[in-house]
Amino acid sequence: MQNTSTDSAYLRLEKRFTRMARLGDAQSILGWDEAVMMPAGSSAARNESLAELAQILQDLLRAPEVADDLAAAEGEALSEWQRANVREMRRRYKRATMIPADLHRQLMMACMECEQAWRRLRGENNWKDFAPLLDKVLQLSREELKILAADQKLSLYDAALEHFSPGLRTEVVDRIFGELRGFLPDLTREILQRQQTHQKIEGEFPVEAQKTLAKHFMQRLGFSFENGRLDESHHPFCGGTQRDVRITTRYNTSEFLSSLMGVLHETGHALYEMNLPLDWYGQPVGQSCGMAIHESQSLFMEMQVCRSREFVELIAPEVQRSFAAHTRHREALDVDNLTRVVQHVERGYIRVDADEVTYPSHIILRYELERGLVEGSIQVNELPGLWNEKMQSLLGLSTLGRDNDGCMQDVHWPGGAFGYFPAYTFGAIIAAQLFSALQTDLPQVRERIRQGEFAEIQAWLRAKIWSQGSRLDTLALVQQAAGPLSVAPFRRHLEARYLK
Amino acid sequence: MQNTSTDSAYLRLEKRFTRMARLGDAQSILGWDEAVMMPAGSSAARNESLAELAQILQDLLRAPEVADDLAAAEGEALSEWQRANVREMRRRYKRATMIPADLHRQLMMACMECEQAWRRLRGENNWKDFAPLLDKVLQLSREELKILAADQKLSLYDAALEHFSPGLRTEVVDRIFGELRGFLPDLTREILQRQQTHQKIEGEFPVEAQKTLAKHFMQRLGFSFENGRLDESHHPFCGGTQRDVRITTRYNTSEFLSSLMGVLHETGHALYEMNLPLDWYGQPVGQSCGMAIHESQSLFMEMQVCRSREFVELIAPEVQRSFAAHTRHREALDVDNLTRVVQHVERGYIRVDADEVTYPSHIILRYELERGLVEGSIQVNELPGLWNEKMQSLLGLSTLGRDNDGCMQDVHWPGGAFGYFPAYTFGAIIAAQLFSALQTDLPQVRERIRQGEFAEIQAWLRAKIWSQGSRLDTLALVQQAAGPLSVAPFRRHLEARYLK
Repeated sequence: MQNTSTDSAYLRLEKRFTRMARLGDAQSILGWDEAVMMPAGSSAARNESLAELAQILQDLLRAPEVADDLAAAEGEALSEWQRANVREMRRRYKRATMIPADLHRQLMMACMECEQAWRRLRGENNWKDFAPLLDKVLQLSREELKILAADQKLSLYDAALEHFSPGLRTEVVDRIFGELRGFLPDLTREILQRQQTHQKIEGEFPVEAQKTLAKHFMQRLGFSFENGRLDESHHPFCGGTQRDVRITTRYNTSEFLSSLMGVLHETGHALYEMNLPLDWYGQPVGQSCGMAIHESQSLFMEMQVCRSREFVELIAPEVQRSFAAHTRHREALDVDNLTRVVQHVERGYIRVDADEVTYPSHIILRYELERGLVEGSIQVNELPGLWNEKMQSLLGLSTLGRDNDGCMQDVHWPGGAFGYFPAYTFGAIIAAQLFSALQTDLPQVRERIRQGEFAEIQAWLRAKIWSQGSRLDTLALVQQAAGPLSVAPFRRHLEARYLK
Repeated sequence: MQNTSTDSAYLRLEKRFTRMARLGDAQSILGWDEAVMMPAGSSAARNESLAELAQILQDLLRAPEVADDLAAAEGEALSEWQRANVREMRRRYKRATMIPADLHRQLMMACMECEQAWRRLRGENNWKDFAPLLDKVLQLSREELKILAADQKLSLYDAALEHFSPGLRTEVVDRIFGELRGFLPDLTREILQRQQTHQKIEGEFPVEAQKTLAKHFMQRLGFSFENGRLDESHHPFCGGTQRDVRITTRYNTSEFLSSLMGVLHETGHALYEMNLPLDWYGQPVGQSCGMAIHESQSLFMEMQVCRSREFVELIAPEVQRSFAAHTRHREALDVDNLTRVVQHVERGYIRVDADEVTYPSHIILRYELERGLVEGSIQVNELPGLWNEKMQSLLGLSTLGRDNDGCMQDVHWPGGAFGYFPAYTFGAIIAAQLFSALQTDLPQVRERIRQGEFAEIQAWLRAKIWSQGSRLDTLALVQQAAGPLSVAPFRRHLEARYLK
């Protein structure tokens, strides 16, 4: 690891981060393998391997010469992208060095303990034993956030937001969620009143046929199987590396649309990863911009494109060819009914099962609670009561006595991911705004979807989002692509789709 | 990487090699992924990841403090296993530090170039373009062997043997292969004269049924799917890690026995890996003893156990249940015919397709040639002529004009693996000797195979071979398990099986 004396400080940093990215790619594939392939008996040994890799990455990032190189590089004459790259390097370096090793280790241990217990205690609806474990995670997370917030001159919750969605601030979340709270309850009521009933699609749908269909439409949306795979795992995810993007799903032989739409959602994530700027492969600035933008890409594909009537018109013939012989009522597979099924709205307890109309309510609730938790105005033991109150007011559902389907349903808090949740709804809003801007540039976009012609849509997203890496922060990237962040396109989208 | 001052030099080394083993496990899983899962488009990026990991492993092994720790540890009071561990550490350290980095890189590049060209040129039967590439690999390998041989006070070819099968020497190979050359030609002729014709097993055998059958008998032999997998790849292999052993095979729907026997062969390798001493997991002495012993374990399972009539009696009912409906002539699946098929002997050009009777001739030929190449008494351009001569004298076949099925058929020499080939036939001889010793300790062994009771066989191999790691060298391990190495049990085995 000696410095090559002829390199500039910036070049030395680039080389170091390239090395780290290669090891990070190894980590990602091993992580995928763990979820998809690994036999259970090797999990302890695998953890040792991953811990060793993580340690080497930490050593590379925290090496004493990095501080000097960063300081020197910040004074060198650099291009705009290089400057942004140094900014992202500095962000990582700070996070790796500012948190005392002891606090970091305690927090990791608390998260691991809480997550493992959560898997069991959620099933048992056992809030009592879960609460102290969650409180430990929260208190240690707050310690970490205090250090980061002081350095960044941010409030505690702003520091939490900044970690997952750079540039996002409490003030913006308050404004946007305030707007949503203003129109969503009435809109939801109206949508539910006017919603036409659909015929349930019943049958026995072979996994192989589902897989073939999913792969076919992944490819039409632009996914390259030369640089990626589709496999099965218990919890669907999009993993792997930028050059080897690996989506997983879970098949249910009695219902094929959830898995298909899940795959197309992950395809949105995958297209973003596959199309990040190759020139910056391995550099921090070449990576995705944060969770709100990432979610905007998956929701663009799932909500804007794939749950549209035009997309249903595109896939209906294939769906009928694949499944007509396996379904009890063939007419359930016609375009009108398929559209009603993929656009079905229903109030429910579970966030991950929610449709795009009720989803924001799940997020607003979590935002209000986690902000209070982080700021110290809400205590962990108040969660069941407050959750129930907010579910009543936002969705008219009571979670009293069913914390498993209430404040215990998500893995985020046990994992210490306070500040993550807003990314989902910002993703939905940004997706609608991007689609609206695309429609201005490409008025025939809906026709293109119906025809299965996605090249122009891809080109637009590549230019506006994918090729940008993390050169800009969340809000600046939206601004550059589609003007100042606004809820209006999301509202218009919901009204157009559900009140037609 | 600072030294923890309270550790002894030996303990510091143990910790270092544990770290290396964890990264080595990561490499192994990534290597498996590359062969079985990876989409083609990510191969360049994967190579970068693997190169980075290899570099880190080299840095850990070649760190300046290792030399001091090794010298100090060699003077510490250690147990027998610890001393053997230091000896194996020293072996690796020497190999990593004695070869100049420049020579090492040139050799790697030459091998990569030659292997890549080989894939194409073998198909084209193009010896002319292949020869100079092979010569380059040979000359650089000889440079490397000169350095190792001088240090170890060995001849060039002994240094080559030592690398793959520690303790094996040219003198022993000459003696053993001399004995084989003495009786094998006549024995082969006699076997072929007396061989009964078998009925070909024809049909269309579904992959799923083949897979189920293979997994069933892997498990009966002792393979644990809690710590391993069976998958498909173009070239079958046994990879992964000691706690996560991954076998691959290739299925042919018109013939199921080759794949099944291939899987059971790899199961022998896998059982060795799975049952290495867990107390020494991650330490050099805890790893397998070398290629001759490793091959003895796969051939023990394939040749001694699974191609025996008793094993055929065990599997015949399952085979008939799985495939009777898919075969044209059901009677081809009875025990007598199945036994004739798995024990069929035939002279052929291709080593990997050879039966156990003709296999040693393929190896003796390669040994005589590669020894001459390494020692400088044979030149690369003489290979086609000498190959043909030796094939004529050993197996009565001419390879004139068909170098693709002659001296271009193997990947070993293009890959620089001079000194590997004898391990195959030493493996076969050791397997026969081990089985013979097992029969003395467990006279009912054949009955146990017929009953599918493998627990005692496993216990015997675990005690004699698997649990020994690389505490002893090849010949010492055989000696301890079954007396001085001898060809006699192998000869008796062939006579008993094929001249009955």
